Amino acid sequence: MADIAGDARLAVCDLGSNSFRLVVFEAHGARPGTLGAWWRRTDEIYEPVRVGAGMDASGALGEAGMARAIAAAELFAHFTGAVGLARHEVDAVATSAIRDATNSELFLDRARAASGLPIRVLSREQEARYGYLAAVNSSDLGDGAVLDLGGGSMQLVEVRGRRAQTLDSWRLGAVRMTERFLPGGEPPGRKALARLREHVAGTLERAGWLEGAGRLVGIGGTVRNLAAATQRALGLPSFGVQGFLVEREALDELVERLASMSAGERGALPGIKPARGDIILAGAVVVQAVLERTAARGIEATEAGLREGVFFERLLADRPEPLFDDVRRASVMNLAARYDGRPAHTCHVAELALGLFDELASAGLHGGDPAERELLWASAMLHDIGVAIDYDDHHKHSRYLVLNAGLPGFDPRDAALIGQVVRYHRNRKGLPEPGPFGPLLRNGDAAVLDRCAVLLRLAEDLERSRDQIVRGAHAHPGGEGGAVRLELVADVDAPVARWAAARERELFARAFGRDLVVV
Amino acid sequence: MADIAGDARLAVCDLGSNSFRLVVFEAHGARPGTLGAWWRRTDEIYEPVRVGAGMDASGALGEAGMARAIAAAELFAHFTGAVGLARHEVDAVATSAIRDATNSELFLDRARAASGLPIRVLSREQEARYGYLAAVNSSDLGDGAVLDLGGGSMQLVEVRGRRAQTLDSWRLGAVRMTERFLPGGEPPGRKALARLREHVAGTLERAGWLEGAGRLVGIGGTVRNLAAATQRALGLPSFGVQGFLVEREALDELVERLASMSAGERGALPGIKPARGDIILAGAVVVQAVLERTAARGIEATEAGLREGVFFERLLADRPEPLFDDVRRASVMNLAARYDGRPAHTCHVAELALGLFDELASAGLHGGDPAERELLWASAMLHDIGVAIDYDDHHKHSRYLVLNAGLPGFDPRDAALIGQVVRYHRNRKGLPEPGPFGPLLRNGDAAVLDRCAVLLRLAEDLERSRDQIVRGAHAHPGGEGGAVRLELVADVDAPVARWAAARERELFARAFGRDLVVV
Repeated sequence: MADIAGDARLAVCDLGSNSFRLVVFEAHGARPGTLGAWWRRTDEIYEPVRVGAGMDASGALGEAGMARAIAAAELFAHFTGAVGLARHEVDAVATSAIRDATNSELFLDRARAASGLPIRVLSREQEARYGYLAAVNSSDLGDGAVLDLGGGSMQLVEVRGRRAQTLDSWRLGAVRMTERFLPGGEPPGRKALARLREHVAGTLERAGWLEGAGRLVGIGGTVRNLAAATQRALGLPSFGVQGFLVEREALDELVERLASMSAGERGALPGIKPARGDIILAGAVVVQAVLERTAARGIEATEAGLREGVFFERLLADRPEPLFDDVRRASVMNLAARYDGRPAHTCHVAELALGLFDELASAGLHGGDPAERELLWASAMLHDIGVAIDYDDHHKHSRYLVLNAGLPGFDPRDAALIGQVVRYHRNRKGLPEPGPFGPLLRNGDAAVLDRCAVLLRLAEDLERSRDQIVRGAHAHPGGEGGAVRLELVADVDAPVARWAAARERELFARAFGRDLVVV
Repeated sequence: MADIAGDARLAVCDLGSNSFRLVVFEAHGARPGTLGAWWRRTDEIYEPVRVGAGMDASGALGEAGMARAIAAAELFAHFTGAVGLARHEVDAVATSAIRDATNSELFLDRARAASGLPIRVLSREQEARYGYLAAVNSSDLGDGAVLDLGGGSMQLVEVRGRRAQTLDSWRLGAVRMTERFLPGGEPPGRKALARLREHVAGTLERAGWLEGAGRLVGIGGTVRNLAAATQRALGLPSFGVQGFLVEREALDELVERLASMSAGERGALPGIKPARGDIILAGAVVVQAVLERTAARGIEATEAGLREGVFFERLLADRPEPLFDDVRRASVMNLAARYDGRPAHTCHVAELALGLFDELASAGLHGGDPAERELLWASAMLHDIGVAIDYDDHHKHSRYLVLNAGLPGFDPRDAALIGQVVRYHRNRKGLPEPGPFGPLLRNGDAAVLDRCAVLLRLAEDLERSRDQIVRGAHAHPGGEGGAVRLELVADVDAPVARWAAARERELFARAFGRDLVVV
């Protein structure tokens, strides 16, 4: 994001079929003495407007829905005025329910007059494109499909080489499908479910390209709730659903469970929000039907959505396409730039750690897996961000920020590993362990954690004086009994760095099966 | 802290008998559009130097200890250079071990020459005074005593009306007492303990004023470790020891336990740091002996120490005495100013919440306890600070910051209550409950939590548009069936504020036993 020119704010008002949301983003340009530009969400107002609920047979918005919608739009306008946003810093977009209503002009005239908001109605293609931008900028999706399920419509986008190919939209939103096929709130009969499935399948016939999609990334509240419910059902530690894969079998089981429940029971299921209990089932069936047509293992959730898509289009406007070059790298740099107060130190620690990683790989002490190298780099860049909370226990605060401020592009296993590496980056604060994240980890991950933690600790030890006097270090595996001799490259003697590094002997032996000698 | 003039940094190098520590503080002056000035610790380097260990019979520092000390001082000098601190921004202070050594001049010459640090040796009175400044600026101590137990010496300060009266220092430090009375590391015999107790009692005879002290506030690593071990032994949730009271009986039990253990076992006791296992017992016996001479219920831990005292002296230099006017208020404003990005909103929410609190108290719906009012104020000022971490779940992040960034002046029960009120300040995010903090709470605290949470929610609802259009609200208890009618004071209609406030009916009924009607 080196190309964020300066500071900027944008309020996106998302006038959706199920809810209205105002979200404020702010971007900060790069400043000298920092790690670069960064952005974040700073504010949000949510109103469960359901403007599309109770449409009459003619397809017109009802008076009650319109009144709720206009009051919410007025609230948003007051808010943007109160926080000092200029007109060009507000983008209000309306989607399916308003776009498709037969009385949409009447509603828009009233809403614009009452609120003064510059509401624009997104075309189906525009709506799909914003969902696509959200998905490819918050995941590492290269080829596959993006599903964006809202209250009124569902968008599907074919993605090849990160670029959108086909963009399409159907009136298959969760509110719409509920009202049409599963009204009432009682557990639906088999027949009603079958009719819904048949309708979705028939509607999707024109999306033949779906069959070739090897990955499916999903956005929207339905997908987020399904992912959260799956995490809970599997007993996984949950710190958000970013990057979580809901596998086919898990989704099938969840749909079966939801179908046996009333709307109230569904809303009480852990992971499902109470206000979504009525529409989650129809939404889940739509997602399931799409997944079945693809070749994907499951659906990957992302927390970004239409609103982020609108923001990314502006944030990355200087590029040929509004895409981050590398989503994971952008996520790490975004968090680091936001919280890190010591860029020279942080970058030097990362360089030292990666240098040791490469030397030990060349020496055959580990496999040199590029994915592991990336986790080490991310951990090094983020190891000290917790100081922004408090110096004491900052290793724990760094983990808290990694897990809670989010790292789009990484899945929960990656985030948990980065979190545990930064948690254990300090000598005297315990030896690495998977802790509560065990259920997310794979075979061999405990060893990854040990290796990354000890290399980060060594780098931190060598950089204790913060002035980069230890410029580098070489690891020679030819010591006595196979010991690894660590040779510091520095212009002056650095006894404290030597003492500190020598304290890592125990963990080094555990990670690499060799003794460590600091020379 | 409105009198912090501008931005400033200070590195305090504390060359103590047990350890050397460098701590960097930074202060930020008030800026327009913020809640005011704030300060924080940004960095720390710890080295377990033990310069005083192995002093010979003549009282001279040993060569090994001096070499470790000089290397650590050089490291500190490199560090201060690396982070760009000017000479006047570094204050290096040496305490008991160096002060009392017969070869202290030799050591100081060497250390100054090698590091260039402007080391000054504190007199006994100066050392005591910095401990006193740390204690009275991090607790609400008005009258009583401050105990500061280090490795070499112990300071006691008599406090009246927050001012220091008697300041005194004794060579009763934990390292010194261990080496003299409890060397070896095995569980000591009764006789050795009795001799240590007798020595301390005899030495303290000249502090006759202690007998009148009704409170005892303790600083230093020994006190912090004793407090942490007590919390663990009692099964209390622990988020630091700030303000925690170790009662006499609990301390007696802990000393008994520690006396039955070897140094290694003591270091493995939850709450005791491994490196302190050898000296914790002697330290505990000294603390116990002081407590026994006072009229206090126990010793109150504070996390501030000598280093904070040195910093406070500079931070508050413009005042007649370097004391915060009101420590709890200063703590709340410090956190709020550091993290809050919406001062007008925050202050208005606090004003609305306190207005409702006062009206409902006048109407006899609750007791109007000033301490509860202060908790409500603190919660209102801090309710949104978690947005600095992430907007999603910011209520939980606000609690994390309250508990982890610290609120000196409040004890753990207060901090837990403030944490739970901010956790539950949002409608749709659950109803208040003590959660894991139950063991810290008193009878009636669940009701305090309900009242504070619902008043904060109502204030937040009325301020949803962020532009203070709802200027105030009146609560009339004379509604139908005793219902409380909430009347909004605003120049324009605010339907969303009304709807939002009406959603608090359930919690309002639970908190005040009355129905709520928003008009």
